[in-house]
This record gives sequence, structure tokens and C-alpha cells, in this order.
Amino acid sequence: MYKLILDLDTGIDDTLAIAYALGSPEVELIGITGTYGNVTLEQGVHNDLAVTDLFGHKEVPAFPGLPHASTKDSFEVLPVSAFIHGDNGVGEAEIAPSPRQPEEENGVDFIIRAAHTYGKDLIYVATGPMTNIAAAFERDPSIINEIGNIVIMGGALTVSGNVAPWREANISQDPEAADALFRSGAQVTMVGLDVTLQTLLTTKETQQWRDLHTKAGDFLADMTDYYIRAYAKTAPQLGGCGLHDPLAVAVAIDPSLITTLGVNLKVDLEEPTRGRTIGDKDRLNDPVKTTQVAVGVDKDRFLQEFMGRISGLAASC
Amino acid sequence: MYKLILDLDTGIDDTLAIAYALGSPEVELIGITGTYGNVTLEQGVHNDLAVTDLFGHKEVPAFPGLPHASTKDSFEVLPVSAFIHGDNGVGEAEIAPSPRQPEEENGVDFIIRAAHTYGKDLIYVATGPMTNIAAAFERDPSIINEIGNIVIMGGALTVSGNVAPWREANISQDPEAADALFRSGAQVTMVGLDVTLQTLLTTKETQQWRDLHTKAGDFLADMTDYYIRAYAKTAPQLGGCGLHDPLAVAVAIDPSLITTLGVNLKVDLEEPTRGRTIGDKDRLNDPVKTTQVAVGVDKDRFLQEFMGRISGLAASC
Repeated sequence: MYKLILDLDTGIDDTLAIAYALGSPEVELIGITGTYGNVTLEQGVHNDLAVTDLFGHKEVPAFPGLPHASTKDSFEVLPVSAFIHGDNGVGEAEIAPSPRQPEEENGVDFIIRAAHTYGKDLIYVATGPMTNIAAAFERDPSIINEIGNIVIMGGALTVSGNVAPWREANISQDPEAADALFRSGAQVTMVGLDVTLQTLLTTKETQQWRDLHTKAGDFLADMTDYYIRAYAKTAPQLGGCGLHDPLAVAVAIDPSLITTLGVNLKVDLEEPTRGRTIGDKDRLNDPVKTTQVAVGVDKDRFLQEFMGRISGLAASC
Repeated sequence: MYKLILDLDTGIDDTLAIAYALGSPEVELIGITGTYGNVTLEQGVHNDLAVTDLFGHKEVPAFPGLPHASTKDSFEVLPVSAFIHGDNGVGEAEIAPSPRQPEEENGVDFIIRAAHTYGKDLIYVATGPMTNIAAAFERDPSIINEIGNIVIMGGALTVSGNVAPWREANISQDPEAADALFRSGAQVTMVGLDVTLQTLLTTKETQQWRDLHTKAGDFLADMTDYYIRAYAKTAPQLGGCGLHDPLAVAVAIDPSLITTLGVNLKVDLEEPTRGRTIGDKDRLNDPVKTTQVAVGVDKDRFLQEFMGRISGLAASC
């Protein structure tokens, strides 16, 4: 069975990504590495433990990663993030805190250790800034080509960004880290706004969770309805919410859900387009393409997998 | 046989586009509509007549189109354009002026008339700003879905631009016109920097033209060597020049030369990314994609076609 690390800033859709992973028999979630973004590192790791407890997976450890961008010395939650995810990161839904503590080992060290232990059997999925993975590659470059599969939710190649027309939120938090990942030589699959904005969840689906009459079902419905209400204000034309982070997990498990375009990506580091993901002209004619950018998604099949896996998990806890 | 209109700001690679078209038995070049960009409208039309004369096609008329962008009231050649194409637009190569005069009919009216006359048998290729075609669509919207094939050289979706990291030269001249074209509903194939920067011509190939010992061969070699020398200063890593405009003509004749991605494009009209070609989020989930963006090119086969057709033409004149 593949071993999975999720690198999360948990976050409503990060929580859905955890649920998707735990509802997937193909992978074993061996650990969550915490990052910052939707929430602080501390809040995110707190949520990781509470959520895995709620979903009946108290064996999943949470490793705090780096608390801020590689080029900064602090991090503060943006008002827009608090608006979308709620102050507690899970849409103000009620969830019991875990009696467990975060691991003492840093998330960056855990990624390195897991890469050496599992090699090509390791799948790494990042749905926040790329700070931890970039730090792991810098600390131990021998793991760059050792990890079996690296999938990120982040970036936007063929559509505009969400924090600025040229900038997607996860890349925006730490452009240098994302640029280092894209230039590292590692094979990366980018699940960006190009495809995640094609996915849609509505209150019709959250009602199915509510109808389970379980603690996890109620929590998922309350949390996700909050997210859908935030979307109704920020993107009323959609009629629901995008499923950013869980799509990245789904793709890591089943790449056939997407169609991709091979591009040697970089991140613009200079203003005015700082944070933009774009093909690097200097590597345009390199026959090896290190990033596969998702440009199409089988949204119906994904939604079916998403509901099947998460409802299956939530039905029993 | 398909009828072809070339909309050009002639220009060194526009001249190569004319040569490619005249060397192609699949199409009849029924007229050149003049635009501004690499040179002024006047200089471009002057070059169109001189070049078609030199290539033995005195029957091809040149129609002056609009002399400046839809949002401006004048146009001046940028210093960088003069550097790349030479003051006369054909790399200071010597060419006899044509005794012919430009047509009195405006290029915009000619496009409309040709669309009504030839309908789906008409291929329209623009390798300069989109000012003429946007004006034609505005003047007579009934032609929007009447033209058989519209191909443009311009834009950059998956790589950076050439006049700014987010801006390609042809789109940059008249962003409003390009945006109107992309939003018109017409099916457009965009041959942008994504693929044209994958093509390459070197002095090895221009020497083959010189070895023809014809007037046209010498002219093509002199002109293109000037272009290659300019590239040696602006993009020394390439070792030659890109074949922007002729690739658009080649694709119009044989779409199998490229692979494409369907995207509902728009052009950013606001700063700081004014002039950027990017997918329109509001039309992301529209199942009909009106622009096919070239993202891959069979460069070997294209170069073979390019040399075969142009050398064949130049061998006899």
C-alpha cells in the first residue's frame, strides 16, 4: 500500500482532503505535516489532530513544519482566509480538541525520513505553501528524486489567480519555495485553479452528510456549509464551493482523473507579477518536463469518488 | 482551393509568412491586409507589394487596414521593432519598390467582403495586432462565424511574453482588439510564443537560400540573417531566430503540426498585467472552448515544410 503524507494548513478543504485520504483504501496516511496559510501552523496542527480523532484515526501523527515563509520571519492569517475558513479554520463548526499532542519531530525532518524509508512508495501531497518541501529538498537534496509522487494544490497557469489576477493563494504565501520546488528537478503534478475551479460541491451534497446522522457527518456538513456560504459572497456565480485540496489527494491516488500538460514551470519572483506560475522560457525546449500541470478534470467521476469515499468514512464515526 | 488572407505588419517574419503562403499549393493568397506594428501601415503595405512582386506574384493585392490601435489615434514604431526588423522592415535588405499601388478598398472592408464571398473556404491569418479583424467583426457581426479558419500569431499562455513577462508584442499593440476577438464567439487558433519559441532557423538554412543564386534567395538570406543577428543580441541562448509568423500560416494550412488546448481566452485590460492572454474564469466551465491554444509543435516537420516550400518558391525567382 502506498504511504501518504499530507502537508496542510487545515483549513476547510484541507479537512476534506484528510477525509478523502482516510476514506481511500489505496493509501495509508502515515502523517500530516503542518504548514501555515488558511490558519496559523499551530491552529492547523491542532485541527489535524482533532479531525483525525473525529474520523477514528487516532494513529495518524501530526508534525509541525515551518511556521512562516522562507523569506519572512512571521506569519499572520489574512482577513480573507479567516472569512473563508472561519477563525478556527473549520468554519466555526464544533469539534472536540484532541487529547493528543503534536509530534516533537519537525515536519521537514519527517518528510526526509519518510522519503528515505519508503522511497517510490511515498506519495506527498501539499495543499498549502511549499515551504516544508522546499526546506526538505534544501536540507537533503538526495530525496529530490526519491519520492514516488509529489502533487500540489496551488498555482494557476491557464486562468487568473484568486488573490490577484496573476497570483494563487498557496504559491503567493511563499513564491521562493514554490519556485525552488519547480526548479528542483523533481517530478511534480500541479493541481491548480485551472482544474479545481471546475469542481463544485453544493448544499445538496452536504445534506447527504447531514442525513448520515453521525458526529462526523454533522461536522462535515456544518463546516462545508460555512465554506459554501463564504463562496456565495466571493463567487456567487458558482452556486457552491470549489474542491481544491481534496482534488489534489484524489489525483495523487488516481492520476487518470485529470489530463495534464508538461511544462517546466517557474514562479515569477519580481513585481508586478510576483507569485505567478508560468513556463520558464529558458527551459521551454528542454525535452524533459518536470511539472505536469492539470488542465482538464473528469469532474463527474471526481465528485462521485469524493462523495463515496467521504460519506463512507463519515457513516461510521 | 482555400482562399487565404494574410493580415500583416511586414516585417521580416511576415515576409517569410508571405513566402510560405506563396509556396503552398493548398491555398490561394487572395489579398494581404495591412496593419501596423513591426513597421508603420504604410511601410508594411509598401513591403507587401515589393515582396509579392519579387516572388513573382504581382496578382496579389494589398489593402491598407487601420493605421493604429482601436484605443489610440496614432502609432509609432518602437525602437526595439526597428532594431529587430530594420528601418525598412526587411532587415535593410535591398528590394525594388513595386510599381503597383495599394488598393483603395480598406483592409477591413476587404475582410468582410471576402468572408461573404468565400465563407468557410476562407482562411484568415493575422500576424500583427488584431485591430483589423476586430473592426471587421464590429462593422459586420454576421461574418463572425462565417470565416472557415482564423489563426493568429500572438499571445503567450504558458510562457512569459516578449515585451514584458506578461505581454506578447502583437497582443500588446491593441489589447482591446485581441480581447474582442477572443470574446467574439469565433473559433480562433492561437499560435503564440508557447510554440513559436520552440521553432528555430539558423544561418545553416539561410545559406541554402543563398546557394540558390536567385534574386529571391539572396533577398531572403540577407533579410533573415539580419533577423538572426538581432536575435543573437536579444536571445543569444537560442543560436538562431524563432519562426513566429510563418508558423501561423503553416498551422492554418496543416493544423496537425500543432497540439492544442481549448481555452476561453481573454486579454487582461487593466494594469499591471495589461496585455496578458489568459483563460477567462467566468467561462472556465463553458463546455464550448472558442480558442485553441497551440501548446506543442512538431518542429522538425515544420522546419522541413518551411524550407521545402520557401526554397521551392525562391528557386525560380
